Amino acid sequence: MKATKYMAFKYKVYDVLNNDSTTIGSKVVQGAIIILILINALSLIFESIPEVKEDYASFFYYFNLFSVIFFSVEYFLRMWSITCDPRFNKPLLGRVKYAFTSMQLIDLLAILPFYLSFVHFDLRVIRLMRVFRLLRVFKITKYVSALSIVVNVFKRKASELAIAAFMLVFLLLIASTAIYYAENPFQPNAFSSIPDSMWWSVITICTVGYGDIYPITIFGKLIGGVLAVIGIGFFALPTGIISSGFAEELAERKEKKRKDEFNTHGCDPEVTCPCCGNSMKAK
Amino acid sequence: MKATKYMAFKYKVYDVLNNDSTTIGSKVVQGAIIILILINALSLIFESIPEVKEDYASFFYYFNLFSVIFFSVEYFLRMWSITCDPRFNKPLLGRVKYAFTSMQLIDLLAILPFYLSFVHFDLRVIRLMRVFRLLRVFKITKYVSALSIVVNVFKRKASELAIAAFMLVFLLLIASTAIYYAENPFQPNAFSSIPDSMWWSVITICTVGYGDIYPITIFGKLIGGVLAVIGIGFFALPTGIISSGFAEELAERKEKKRKDEFNTHGCDPEVTCPCCGNSMKAK
Amino acid sequence: MKATKYMAFKYKVYDVLNNDSTTIGSKVVQGAIIILILINALSLIFESIPEVKEDYASFFYYFNLFSVIFFSVEYFLRMWSITCDPRFNKPLLGRVKYAFTSMQLIDLLAILPFYLSFVHFDLRVIRLMRVFRLLRVFKITKYVSALSIVVNVFKRKASELAIAAFMLVFLLLIASTAIYYAENPFQPNAFSSIPDSMWWSVITICTVGYGDIYPITIFGKLIGGVLAVIGIGFFALPTGIISSGFAEELAERKEKKRKDEFNTHGCDPEVTCPCCGNSMKAK
Amino acid sequence: MKATKYMAFKYKVYDVLNNDSTTIGSKVVQGAIIILILINALSLIFESIPEVKEDYASFFYYFNLFSVIFFSVEYFLRMWSITCDPRFNKPLLGRVKYAFTSMQLIDLLAILPFYLSFVHFDLRVIRLMRVFRLLRVFKITKYVSALSIVVNVFKRKASELAIAAFMLVFLLLIASTAIYYAENPFQPNAFSSIPDSMWWSVITICTVGYGDIYPITIFGKLIGGVLAVIGIGFFALPTGIISSGFAEELAERKEKKRKDEFNTHGCDPEVTCPCCGNSMKAK
Repeated sequence: MKATKYMAFKYKVYDVLNNDSTTIGSKVVQGAIIILILINALSLIFESIPEVKEDYASFFYYFNLFSVIFFSVEYFLRMWSITCDPRFNKPLLGRVKYAFTSMQLIDLLAILPFYLSFVHFDLRVIRLMRVFRLLRVFKITKYVSALSIVVNVFKRKASELAIAAFMLVFLLLIASTAIYYAENPFQPNAFSSIPDSMWWSVITICTVGYGDIYPITIFGKLIGGVLAVIGIGFFALPTGIISSGFAEELAERKEKKRKDEFNTHGCDPEVTCPCCGNSMKAK
Repeated sequence: MKATKYMAFKYKVYDVLNNDSTTIGSKVVQGAIIILILINALSLIFESIPEVKEDYASFFYYFNLFSVIFFSVEYFLRMWSITCDPRFNKPLLGRVKYAFTSMQLIDLLAILPFYLSFVHFDLRVIRLMRVFRLLRVFKITKYVSALSIVVNVFKRKASELAIAAFMLVFLLLIASTAIYYAENPFQPNAFSSIPDSMWWSVITICTVGYGDIYPITIFGKLIGGVLAVIGIGFFALPTGIISSGFAEELAERKEKKRKDEFNTHGCDPEVTCPCCGNSMKAK
Repeated sequence: MKATKYMAFKYKVYDVLNNDSTTIGSKVVQGAIIILILINALSLIFESIPEVKEDYASFFYYFNLFSVIFFSVEYFLRMWSITCDPRFNKPLLGRVKYAFTSMQLIDLLAILPFYLSFVHFDLRVIRLMRVFRLLRVFKITKYVSALSIVVNVFKRKASELAIAAFMLVFLLLIASTAIYYAENPFQPNAFSSIPDSMWWSVITICTVGYGDIYPITIFGKLIGGVLAVIGIGFFALPTGIISSGFAEELAERKEKKRKDEFNTHGCDPEVTCPCCGNSMKAK
Repeated sequence: MKATKYMAFKYKVYDVLNNDSTTIGSKVVQGAIIILILINALSLIFESIPEVKEDYASFFYYFNLFSVIFFSVEYFLRMWSITCDPRFNKPLLGRVKYAFTSMQLIDLLAILPFYLSFVHFDLRVIRLMRVFRLLRVFKITKYVSALSIVVNVFKRKASELAIAAFMLVFLLLIASTAIYYAENPFQPNAFSSIPDSMWWSVITICTVGYGDIYPITIFGKLIGGVLAVIGIGFFALPTGIISSGFAEELAERKEKKRKDEFNTHGCDPEVTCPCCGNSMKAK
């Protein structure tokens, strides 16, 4: 009897924390978590302003403490209740498997820096690790289902985009080497080595152009001009890939919808006659 | 009898001010309003040049006075005559409803700052409110019907574009935090806080690159380079979305046109035979 | 008999100067004209380098003289022989009509500045008019027929592109006014008036970002950031328009080609059966 | 008998060095070559950092020596064994033909600079030639077959892209001349000649905008603004071309796949009925 109550409670916790659940309790908890994540993001931003940090130091300290405790409890409740999910129903193996899902890893990284800050082995490293605090925001993506079209397009075109990325890396290598040999003798500080020249190459080909370093020789300007023009192509290539990806994705969804409708309603009245080009119904 | 004359006059005013009307009187009045709006825009621009303002101060004063009176009269005539429109035919409720349509709100905002300038509670605030004077130009959009394709494409793809915008905001947050922790210890003035770093992030990802602040450390340059490359993707994503939107919108319009033609003329001679690929008529 | 010889000579001149002609004589003359135009463009470029101009002043003088004489003779021969063309066969009216075609106007503008330079009314104006010398290069476009697809796409989408241009102008107006009111009190030299602020707006929205002027206030940076993000949209909009234009243009050409093939060969073997999806021939 | 052994050995060498071969020996050798090429690229990059070069000078010297010997041996083994390939089976003519294939030329350029460095005729020229060392990386492209879609799209649209490139060159010429006449009298150092102004034009139209030189006169800013707006079009044009190229390429591949399936399996079950819009099989 007690075990049953325990199981019912566990299932309730699982349901409340489960993103796909549609019960009211679940929606309230999910909403509260999102709001806390957003306030955490804002708090991180405002804490970086020296004047604000000084005046509200204790508020940030206690809010951070509260958030970490809240997210830690959430994390461990998730780990405890996950065995209600058929995919992770083995007490130990299921939980280990779940701990290594990308969502749980992100959640862990969001709370870990706080605990590690007690170790004090190197302050600088911990400081950089605090960037992970922002990963709390990643949780939001869990709740956005409309992302699926965009994500599908990127998945569908992953190999073409990878080739575009490979071409970009290759071009950056060529351009950095060329500009280094052209400009280094005249601007030894600006183009001090190929890795340094790479900064210039990427900022030029992406058409950002800060102007902190730029070529001054004829050869350097020629390389820079060609790189800028090729940069146009490197905007056109992924755009063309993604455009055709959207067109295909939407054509497939439309086709699938039509087939589903046929299976439900029989002959689709929206289909046009191949002879007269008009709706079959109108005929 | 008098009431009938009053009604006839009111209807005439309504017709003349109504953008959709095709009577000659209406076209003349609409044209005059557009020209006055354009001159107002030019006057605002030239008034901002110190030398011009000094020399023609009284001209600008009287022209502004004239414009506000003209637009005020127009505004109140519209409010008075709108009851001729079946959608707003109730004397009070109809007019209140009409006052809150976006067009009437813009018209009100275009004349309000002038009247409020007599109150003198804070000169600086009034100065900023003068920006609303430019909203007079918004009226022009009323007259451009060809906008519908562009507007439809944006409406059709609103959710995908919203996701792209969400991803942009998210990325800016991540990048600003990362660059702040990487560059702040070395350039405390340039990257003084996360909100300040956001300025750098948005200027980099949109590939503007003023060069007022830029990273100088290895980590900062790495973040900057990655952000610039991702920036290419943030040009490709909305472009792909809008491209497929145009393709769909135009395909739908073509399909609709063909169906309309069938309903008028019977079998569409432009439809090709599925066997020989030629027009049905030619066969 | 003499008149016939005269007519035959005139027709020969017409044929040789006519761009569409395929006789060997015509091709040689056309080629010589293109080469002279290209050398003129190169001469204009090199003449602008002070050291080169000093050393080769007399060469540039005589080459320019020769070119103008050559192009003048070409211009008058064209005017004289054009009556052989059925469209311009009336001695006076035909020639006047021909003189006002865009090609002849460009040719005239390319030689006129030289003759006007003897008048000496204002040297500076003549200097600016020399830019028209570059218009000689425009002649090259006459010979490029492959341009037609690109030109058709722009024609087909002219109205949508015009709306995009209108939106750009409108946005520049809004942004310039907003940034002027936000930044002028703090940077009176950089943002001295709305026309001056427009320079900043256009350089920001086109994502060029020279960095000669940039906002320093919170409001100004906010306006700049929003403008930069909107700038992405202003790359996406014309790209989407032009992409769908290319898709339509190519679909139409394919359709037209298929119909032409049917009219020549009867049932097109490339058309697929609507039942099995394979070529009708294969069946 | 000896000749047979010699032939067998030669064929084995040919097979091992042949990129299309699928034997284990070939895969191991190909992998080793790729890794050595990548290490060569890294070595070139790190050698350019003065501190690294000083500390590891002898390592770079011996690694470079080893690489050149390795690639030389590979090059000559390829030349020796190529007669096993039916396309190059003539002892002399086949080898000469093979030596002039683009792959063998690149391989030769990758090792040649090292041998030429013993000639010492001009150190500066040899230095610039070292850039060719990076061409070793080009070899990698041999192994990437997935490139074919991207390459096909560029080939398919070569003529349209050439026209876009021609328009770009033409526009740069016009813009450079115009800005030279507008800005030279006021900034004789920044816009000293038309070739110098071209650097500004290309950096503006590609929306890089370093900010090293920029117009300061009204006319110059007008030219700059127009050029920046046209720059948007020069991103849109190649993007539209490439987008439609991807759409066509993918449509053709889909069509080809369907036809292949028909030839293998008869009536393709994936083809939809023209009446009901559903799969023929479902019917």
